[in-house]
Amino acid sequence: MANPAYVAVDWGTSSFRLWLIGRDGSVLAERRSGEGMTSAAKTGFSQVLAGHLAAVEAPENLPVIICGMAGARQGWVEAGYIDVPAPLAAILTAAVSVPGESRDIRILPGLAQRDMATPDVMRGEETQLLGALGNASAGAQAVCMPGTHSKWVHVGDGKVTGFSTFMTGELFDVISKHTILSHAVAGAQEQPADAAAFEAAVSAAFARPALASNLLFTARSGQLLHGISAASAQARLSGTLIGLEIAGALQDAANSGITLVASGRLQALYEQAFKTLSLPFTAIDADAAVRRGLSAAAEAIWPN
Amino acid sequence: MANPAYVAVDWGTSSFRLWLIGRDGSVLAERRSGEGMTSAAKTGFSQVLAGHLAAVEAPENLPVIICGMAGARQGWVEAGYIDVPAPLAAILTAAVSVPGESRDIRILPGLAQRDMATPDVMRGEETQLLGALGNASAGAQAVCMPGTHSKWVHVGDGKVTGFSTFMTGELFDVISKHTILSHAVAGAQEQPADAAAFEAAVSAAFARPALASNLLFTARSGQLLHGISAASAQARLSGTLIGLEIAGALQDAANSGITLVASGRLQALYEQAFKTLSLPFTAIDADAAVRRGLSAAAEAIWPN
Repeated sequence: MANPAYVAVDWGTSSFRLWLIGRDGSVLAERRSGEGMTSAAKTGFSQVLAGHLAAVEAPENLPVIICGMAGARQGWVEAGYIDVPAPLAAILTAAVSVPGESRDIRILPGLAQRDMATPDVMRGEETQLLGALGNASAGAQAVCMPGTHSKWVHVGDGKVTGFSTFMTGELFDVISKHTILSHAVAGAQEQPADAAAFEAAVSAAFARPALASNLLFTARSGQLLHGISAASAQARLSGTLIGLEIAGALQDAANSGITLVASGRLQALYEQAFKTLSLPFTAIDADAAVRRGLSAAAEAIWPN
Repeated sequence: MANPAYVAVDWGTSSFRLWLIGRDGSVLAERRSGEGMTSAAKTGFSQVLAGHLAAVEAPENLPVIICGMAGARQGWVEAGYIDVPAPLAAILTAAVSVPGESRDIRILPGLAQRDMATPDVMRGEETQLLGALGNASAGAQAVCMPGTHSKWVHVGDGKVTGFSTFMTGELFDVISKHTILSHAVAGAQEQPADAAAFEAAVSAAFARPALASNLLFTARSGQLLHGISAASAQARLSGTLIGLEIAGALQDAANSGITLVASGRLQALYEQAFKTLSLPFTAIDADAAVRRGLSAAAEAIWPN
């Protein structure tokens, strides 16, 4: 095994991911679990981390760099926020140390947008963003990081100028589970996805975002009057919410290039949405991006 | 007690309301309960109705006129839909009889909009609408009937030309209860309402509906960064959803007069929203409207 240099951790609200990184930057070992902030706040952050470090046989003095909700007020140690506008690299010098630990453990800060009309916060995505764009990105762009709470970040010349959170993933989840549309989408998982219905919904919501909560209801009325399938109803629901998000994110930045930072199913859905709307984009893998961002921080904090 | 002429029933998904109406049109007795379609489908519609009829001492042969979900496929007897465009009065001649009952019981049909792109349905609101506007209303107008599923109906010269359902009330409910915003709004009931926050949210969502799911999130980020109160967070949530609804409902009909058919708390909220947006409107009490609509149907079916 190559010589390990540090451990990188992406500690979200409901997920925990750890990588043992070698001196050559390679991934020597990986751990994934559901021990996110919510669960670790009960069982103890130090204990959760120690268990995973033991599992990958991390040497005793190996340092650990962490991003995400572990740095929230209700997390392990509060790592504050860097206020935007700010250069992306500002997070590299603002990590806080976790006291009372035998090894060197640092948690990266989040970003905050403090104006009264559009306050916003992120934790974890700033590290993903750093990894996706690198330290010195050129030109104005809009970076889309889809998820439970999708983040759209406006970047110009390595500086974050502003960002917006859209509750797309969480709205999809609660509308699917807890509203009258739950009947319309029941069983959708067992059916092939309805790409045409998804694309039509993306286009409709993008063109007329004000009708979003009406478009959602057509998942039900379409089933009552036209017998549309559960997969089609689900495609209307996700297409409407994604179309609404893109319309909102781009209305002040229609000419920016889009960088999509995503993985798996979400990456595929957003790529399909951008193609439907004829919006050019570049895709970057989200898992690789957060790892690259953590590595950039580790190398800045502990230079070889 | 004046001579009773008929019984009028508004039978919704989760509520049951019954009025004993006299020969002079006056309300002789009233019953309200939670035995809506969902509950009555289990206990038996006939039995639920018989219990309330006995409680108001309705004479044995007194006829009953019903509107609402009792006429749905999963209701008592399916009463079908009248397809729009259609004159409002068309519902008066399309009531279906409930078979196997000793007294004459009729259920009014709903309205359906069958086009593929914007399918929609209503049951109960068509009767409220008839009562609100009367048989022969003049001029184009947009009728707003807020609720769990708000209905906006476009009417011209006594004809329903089209309508749209917005999931405003249900979205408010599930977002308040089941998303991360539940923490932000917890305890709002014990605080005075924040009128300024509501009006700001209505204006923001009306002006920029594409940002709806971002504006919702500011209820949380505003609390994290600026310590806004639970009442203020709740006002942002309801104001955003109502502003989005009004923007969608009026985007093709900005010049129509608005008729608001509502009661109680919802009436106050929508009046505040229309005033904030400088949209002129006329308010009609929803309870009185549905009773007037049921009376119009009873008088058409059983003329004196």
